[in-house]
Amino acid sequence: MASWLIENAAVVTMDDEERVLPEADILIQGAEIAGLWASGETPRGTTADRRIDAKGMVALPGLVNAHTHCAMTLLRGYADDMPLVPWLQERIWPFEMKLNEEDVYWGSLLGIAEMIRGGVTCFNDMYHYPEATMRAVLDSGIRGIVSGVVLALLPDAKDRLERAIELAGEWKGKGDGLLVTMLSPHAPWTCPNDLLERVVEGAQETGVGIHIHVSETEEEVQNSLRQFGKTDVGRLEEIGLLDISPVLAAHCVHVTDSDIHTLVEKRVGISHNPGSNMKLASGTAPIPRLLAAGAIVGMGTDGAASNNNLDMIEEARLAALLHKLQARDPTVVTAHQAIAMATRGGARALGIGDRVGQIKPGWKADLILLDFRQPHLFPPHDVVSHLVYAARAGDVRTVFVNGRPLMVDRELRTLDEEKIFAHVAERLKRLM
Amino acid sequence: MASWLIENAAVVTMDDEERVLPEADILIQGAEIAGLWASGETPRGTTADRRIDAKGMVALPGLVNAHTHCAMTLLRGYADDMPLVPWLQERIWPFEMKLNEEDVYWGSLLGIAEMIRGGVTCFNDMYHYPEATMRAVLDSGIRGIVSGVVLALLPDAKDRLERAIELAGEWKGKGDGLLVTMLSPHAPWTCPNDLLERVVEGAQETGVGIHIHVSETEEEVQNSLRQFGKTDVGRLEEIGLLDISPVLAAHCVHVTDSDIHTLVEKRVGISHNPGSNMKLASGTAPIPRLLAAGAIVGMGTDGAASNNNLDMIEEARLAALLHKLQARDPTVVTAHQAIAMATRGGARALGIGDRVGQIKPGWKADLILLDFRQPHLFPPHDVVSHLVYAARAGDVRTVFVNGRPLMVDRELRTLDEEKIFAHVAERLKRLM
Repeated sequence: MASWLIENAAVVTMDDEERVLPEADILIQGAEIAGLWASGETPRGTTADRRIDAKGMVALPGLVNAHTHCAMTLLRGYADDMPLVPWLQERIWPFEMKLNEEDVYWGSLLGIAEMIRGGVTCFNDMYHYPEATMRAVLDSGIRGIVSGVVLALLPDAKDRLERAIELAGEWKGKGDGLLVTMLSPHAPWTCPNDLLERVVEGAQETGVGIHIHVSETEEEVQNSLRQFGKTDVGRLEEIGLLDISPVLAAHCVHVTDSDIHTLVEKRVGISHNPGSNMKLASGTAPIPRLLAAGAIVGMGTDGAASNNNLDMIEEARLAALLHKLQARDPTVVTAHQAIAMATRGGARALGIGDRVGQIKPGWKADLILLDFRQPHLFPPHDVVSHLVYAARAGDVRTVFVNGRPLMVDRELRTLDEEKIFAHVAERLKRLM
Repeated sequence: MASWLIENAAVVTMDDEERVLPEADILIQGAEIAGLWASGETPRGTTADRRIDAKGMVALPGLVNAHTHCAMTLLRGYADDMPLVPWLQERIWPFEMKLNEEDVYWGSLLGIAEMIRGGVTCFNDMYHYPEATMRAVLDSGIRGIVSGVVLALLPDAKDRLERAIELAGEWKGKGDGLLVTMLSPHAPWTCPNDLLERVVEGAQETGVGIHIHVSETEEEVQNSLRQFGKTDVGRLEEIGLLDISPVLAAHCVHVTDSDIHTLVEKRVGISHNPGSNMKLASGTAPIPRLLAAGAIVGMGTDGAASNNNLDMIEEARLAALLHKLQARDPTVVTAHQAIAMATRGGARALGIGDRVGQIKPGWKADLILLDFRQPHLFPPHDVVSHLVYAARAGDVRTVFVNGRPLMVDRELRTLDEEKIFAHVAERLKRLM
């Protein structure tokens, strides 16, 4: 693979020292970041196959979308502003019943195109027909963590789970490690104990992690307390599910102090999804308390039926704004904390935080360049503040994943958008 | 002025029938919209000097930013994540003390460039050195409502007010009506009764409206109750300020049922500014109740020190998301209501709703085209939903104000951004 030298970028490293380098050079060799120097201190003789003059641009580790259902782009704008139960029962589920594997493939590619354009270099997906999304990951070159959702209410739940375990083992690590697999029981309220126990066994057998919705709505937690005498987190702990590593628990909106203690102790990764939680009126996750307790918190967009985009810069902004308001304290969830959740936090939550989520020599070259020479990002008093409070997904110009350029100057390199639009439009004729 | 024919756009009219035309043509002649027809029904022989093929684009009335302090773009990212009082006293006010008229001119142009790029065709401004912002309005061709802020704590408050009254009379209606002037007493808590009474007189003498902050924080309202035995709204009513037309009351976060009744009865325009209210942790304005009571509600970004951009699509999204969450009801503040506040609602609140804020023959040609042929806006199940829940300011391609193209295919026609960046950078050397 080619080597690249990115010169004169403002670099938000997201490293442990929270360094922001006002002007620096980044050397990419193969899949990795091979060097990072303040401009002018780059060793003489440093060469690369390609150079990018990134003056006026900001380099950031690629955004990590820690919870989504990528192919739900097919349902973007299909049903909004509705109460939760009719929304699911009358609109979303009947549509999903009609989906086939190729629909999910093209819907996944549409979502991946959107994510690359918005600087997302890694996403964690839970959906039907996971093979289709796995193929889309490999065809696009994005880093993807993919799992096939299992719910007891599907008639073939047990067969699906066995198939999901097989797939997770078969596809694990494909694409030079770009593809990571997991198992995904939908949620405690949709999965009885025997199903969850088999998930734990399957994860142990294949050596993969688990992706699950946890305590998204108040009602779920109340039902769990009534039925099991435990919260969702308490029940998952008892079953042994939280001893798997990694576990990515999406939402965690309605968690108790004791749940927070357990989540921290078991090192469970949490995906905070403020856009979806607001749009579906689910509630506000206690992110300031989770962060203060030392929880591992990433962020996600959720699916495009409840967001309705896959824009992680928007999620970072929503987190910073929402928690200030709810705490009535403008110092809560700082810009740095918000962007940390959207990058290194997500990578840690997904069990890849030892190689993804920072701009650091030896780490995977998953990084993005944003064009800051625009009126809404001027003057550049504070680039971290601007990333969270002023920037937009469309400001991303160039995207590397695993050292490979997936977008350069807003041109996608691995995907043909017009072809994706045409396939999606054609498939929707049947689905609608 | 040239005539334009925009063909094959999806047109979100924002008219009284809430019509969305899937494919339509718009004829602009001079400053006005001269025709609107479903494509194919446009009369034979309809000609124009220029044509735009807007297939795949959405036409929307220009966004109306009903409350901002445009030149505060100079302070974007200069101080964030701080408690309100030190933020104002240690950072914002000392910076503002150093500003001169030319600083405000270039800061205003920077904000106007950002707003045009984001589809804002009209803004309502309150700041120091209003002549500078008025010049920036006329030089850029945007529609601007400009007033010079008056606060009692400035040593020359009374002289400033007299000067502001003079200016409002002198500049009123310049630029073929693009420039509207108002008076702007900062807020009830910063203006004693005699100052407010003189504002009312001045507004009557010059025939202009009033722009004022109202009940932004809980503390202001508590102080007003202690000092005057009345809420802000009650006090303004008593002074007779609410009998001026129009009055634009920004924020209205902490208003009582009785205040709401008064605001509706007096036909006061309200600017809802959710981004700023969240970032400064001020609270949540009771927008669902205000709308249900029949209040005239627009939206604004507030200044770039507390937002930190001038992005009205983001404000519309925040409004739709925030009120769903706070009401725990996903049907509250629909996509249509949100975009209505950001367009026609703002125009009505500012007293220009009889000619701005809808795409309608005979109305001012203030309209924008957004490029919907992008992954994050596909598939086009519902364009109004997409505008609010998925679109971004950067999706705006073309902007007309008063029939004049200010941006075509993302090229600004009246402003030189590089020149603005250079002037702002130079001035910041002195200010910092």
